[in-house]
Amino acid sequence: MKSPGSFETIAYANGVVTMLDQRFLPHKEIYNQYTHAAEVAEAISTMVIRGAPAIGVAAAYGVALAAFRGAREEPARFHLVVEEAASLLAATRPTAVNLFWAIEKMRRILAECASSAPQATAERLLEQARAIHSEDLELCHRIGAFGQALVPDGATVLTHCNAGALATAGHGTALGVIRSAVAAGKRVQVIADETRPFLQGARLTAWELARDGIEVSVVADGAAAWLLKRHRADLVIVGTDRVAANGDVANKIGTYGVALAARAAKVPFYVAAPWSTIDLSTPTGDDIVIEERPALEVTHVMGQRIVPEGVPVLNPAFDVTPHELVTALITDRGLVYPPFAEGLRAFA
Amino acid sequence: MKSPGSFETIAYANGVVTMLDQRFLPHKEIYNQYTHAAEVAEAISTMVIRGAPAIGVAAAYGVALAAFRGAREEPARFHLVVEEAASLLAATRPTAVNLFWAIEKMRRILAECASSAPQATAERLLEQARAIHSEDLELCHRIGAFGQALVPDGATVLTHCNAGALATAGHGTALGVIRSAVAAGKRVQVIADETRPFLQGARLTAWELARDGIEVSVVADGAAAWLLKRHRADLVIVGTDRVAANGDVANKIGTYGVALAARAAKVPFYVAAPWSTIDLSTPTGDDIVIEERPALEVTHVMGQRIVPEGVPVLNPAFDVTPHELVTALITDRGLVYPPFAEGLRAFA
Repeated sequence: MKSPGSFETIAYANGVVTMLDQRFLPHKEIYNQYTHAAEVAEAISTMVIRGAPAIGVAAAYGVALAAFRGAREEPARFHLVVEEAASLLAATRPTAVNLFWAIEKMRRILAECASSAPQATAERLLEQARAIHSEDLELCHRIGAFGQALVPDGATVLTHCNAGALATAGHGTALGVIRSAVAAGKRVQVIADETRPFLQGARLTAWELARDGIEVSVVADGAAAWLLKRHRADLVIVGTDRVAANGDVANKIGTYGVALAARAAKVPFYVAAPWSTIDLSTPTGDDIVIEERPALEVTHVMGQRIVPEGVPVLNPAFDVTPHELVTALITDRGLVYPPFAEGLRAFA
Repeated sequence: MKSPGSFETIAYANGVVTMLDQRFLPHKEIYNQYTHAAEVAEAISTMVIRGAPAIGVAAAYGVALAAFRGAREEPARFHLVVEEAASLLAATRPTAVNLFWAIEKMRRILAECASSAPQATAERLLEQARAIHSEDLELCHRIGAFGQALVPDGATVLTHCNAGALATAGHGTALGVIRSAVAAGKRVQVIADETRPFLQGARLTAWELARDGIEVSVVADGAAAWLLKRHRADLVIVGTDRVAANGDVANKIGTYGVALAARAAKVPFYVAAPWSTIDLSTPTGDDIVIEERPALEVTHVMGQRIVPEGVPVLNPAFDVTPHELVTALITDRGLVYPPFAEGLRAFA
């Protein structure tokens, strides 16, 4: 599956998963190669790759790697080996539902192949992983097509974190809407929150939009509310790691504050959500596990310490935006407006 | 005037102004010495010293330095030399009103001394600068005394930027309230927003509170709203650079977003405001000039580039929190509750 952009977030060929190492962007474009599921799990944990759709794709390929290795090295323990890899991959990050959704799809294939030869099962698993990968790109284009109708010509869009080509198989979800609006001939400017602590906005969103020739400015996270108040942005579009059945949205820490500011400024707040992020089995945002990430992400920036030695930090990686603050969900099945519980059930 | 803490933010002795260079904290405790008003102006512009009360003190000493130098080197042009220095110092930063308030006090002395000998006038100006300095410390203690009554025993206080001993002549305004609460025997924990782009929270608030043995944790700015929503903080206390006549509060960029989140979480939002920050001649926050600071503060952290080359940034240094979101102003004359216009007039 070729990404439509000038870089590839993730690719699979001949038993090797290649990922663009997002920790080194925007300074270095380094592609890492992985041949073990455990390496893929480590890459997800350490945020070589991040973004809910992209980690779903990565986890699926990780299961496929384990299957080929198991078929070759431990055919007698094949199902156990694959199951262990799936569990390991599932334990990497708790908030994004795509991880569990992708692994569940892989497990279903594994179960269907209970009586098949290991090598044949591994082929089926790879086929499923490739399908998850290529479907993700299609979903992003569908989200873009539905969402771009919401973007007026000449608009400035504020976004948080990176819900772009780097967070997906390509095109992006929130940034996919922007790319589709640009492709439709609209003039669009983007304001990217830098998105501490991991700086996905400053490092990744700015990098991929600049690379595509889309006008982007970066701001400190604290400036977003003020810029919205001063009508410097016409709408907000963000991605999501999980949408609860009532429409509550888990996304990168800081999203909830942007949503409050958008509401106060009467600016629409849209969430680009592939259907794989919609988790109807989770009733509300209160039921979503919020990952706490390592202190080092806050205490250091680019290897430089900014917090005095011995001072502790809190580092919740996500927050939940209550559905009351969401104007609409932009899914690959269409736009969902409040009341979300009914709207989501209708599309399910 | 000795600062009560273990460091001195600013000091004057024998024609030399000494400042703790806040750009190198928390890593290095470097004290710079200045003998020219122009050097002091440069120190204020480049944030060697920052915080509304502290820059007022620095500007006053800067005028005194110019006066002694003028008396010695250009007695015939004495008044012009001092006036030029005052204008240069006033042009350093537009938002904090203390700068103009302190310079105005110095200009009044200069006008009173129209027929005095230059050396005698310089002595009077130094006396005024010392008075501004020592009064600031007293004001902070009065703010602490009034404000500490609002801090329950066992409370967690969220703060933004640094309104501490480093922003004043000592004790601090927002952090002065916390220090006074601790001195009154209360157990208090602090959550400090890191406060990008200049990282006053991570670098300065964490440093000075840890140094005083007060429990402090640092969080990314984007986490503040979520932590408030999850009731991880019981109240918010921030400082201010200028309060308009209607109670609108200019403070470090990001403050407005914290205020929105505090309101949504039904958590009180207090502003510690020495009377010198209250600007009754400015009707509302819309009339306050918001300083735009250099791009480098956003594009780089500790000398490391985080934003791709060629991508522009927006860097408003302050925002305005509308008075509707402020629970009370903690001034050195007492607590002011809404309606602020009336409350402030009553204390004036």
